[in-house]
Amino acid sequence: MELFTYYRSTSSYRVRIALALKGLDYQAVPVNLLKGEQRAAAFLAINPQGRVPALRTDDGQLLVQSSAIIEYLDEAYPHPSLLPSSAEQRATVRGVAAVIGCDIHPLHNVSVLNQLRQLGHDEAQVTQWIGHWIGQGLAAVEQLIGDRGFSLGGTPGLADLYLVPQVYAAERFNVDLSGYPRILRVAALAAQHPAFVQAHPAHQPDTPVQ
Amino acid sequence: MELFTYYRSTSSYRVRIALALKGLDYQAVPVNLLKGEQRAAAFLAINPQGRVPALRTDDGQLLVQSSAIIEYLDEAYPHPSLLPSSAEQRATVRGVAAVIGCDIHPLHNVSVLNQLRQLGHDEAQVTQWIGHWIGQGLAAVEQLIGDRGFSLGGTPGLADLYLVPQVYAAERFNVDLSGYPRILRVAALAAQHPAFVQAHPAHQPDTPVQ
Repeated sequence: MELFTYYRSTSSYRVRIALALKGLDYQAVPVNLLKGEQRAAAFLAINPQGRVPALRTDDGQLLVQSSAIIEYLDEAYPHPSLLPSSAEQRATVRGVAAVIGCDIHPLHNVSVLNQLRQLGHDEAQVTQWIGHWIGQGLAAVEQLIGDRGFSLGGTPGLADLYLVPQVYAAERFNVDLSGYPRILRVAALAAQHPAFVQAHPAHQPDTPVQ
Repeated sequence: MELFTYYRSTSSYRVRIALALKGLDYQAVPVNLLKGEQRAAAFLAINPQGRVPALRTDDGQLLVQSSAIIEYLDEAYPHPSLLPSSAEQRATVRGVAAVIGCDIHPLHNVSVLNQLRQLGHDEAQVTQWIGHWIGQGLAAVEQLIGDRGFSLGGTPGLADLYLVPQVYAAERFNVDLSGYPRILRVAALAAQHPAFVQAHPAHQPDTPVQ
């Protein structure tokens, strides 16, 4: 498999955690978003949306959108599973993932922040915008997750693939997380977990040398 | 089942199409977003995020986020299926749904538009913002879907549950769709399909009388 990725992209980070948890080998193909490589014709042929991540499967099929890629990995490589077995529990886990994947992250991705800058907002206003959506979304997540272990169970699952990269983004944007003890507990567990460490933005082939 | 819904909410509309395609009975519980009922304590006890849709299952479990609810319905009530059988094809369909569900709709939901107004933008700028994200996202969808039948097959599936409500929203916001003939073809098919008609915002218990 080939993963088109950017070290700091939170949606690429999700997919990397899934790959690491399942112990799957893949070739990382870095796409430098700062240099605009996602808008080059070569990459638009891979993903017409011009975004990472994208996955080329072993059959050569190109898949886009982290949620779809992660569900694919869980169906094609079912062990360990990222979802519980009952339909209702699966929906609970997917609900937490979707709060983050649909109602937090899309509001602070780079294209949205650039659009705000084009509308004349300065960096203080952009930072306030980011904090507003991350704070509002994580307040809901804090209520939806459990009070021990990973987000919704003793072992990491789909919700954690979303939550841990979202915490990384929140810290990068200096959002105060002290009001979310459950979320901080999950982040602390992940910081010690080999798959989450392997997938971390600090440890990618395209991570800039300090 | 009980569906907490608002007639014009595109994410509620998605779930209503799924219920109608599967021929499932449910009780619609309208939540009037214009009156702020989603922020009332009674509703926050149902969904701490204060958003529709939410589903109370026959077992009394509360589920949130349209994508999680639709996957639940497809697992608990598998016929007719909303997804193809192969993992790669399922990912392709889920990818189109996620472009709409994560990268278009969240950027023009009511809370984001109100935030823009609070930042001092007038209605012309808000309308331009909406058109920017819908146009950019639907341009990708146009390339990702097929050139006959519904979005990715002869029968309606998950991608159509997302696309048809998104077209409804685009038309409501006067976005020009003439550059997307595939999308318009799907919308025209849906306009003739009983399940899509039943789920349409014009035909809900809380639809305002003209």
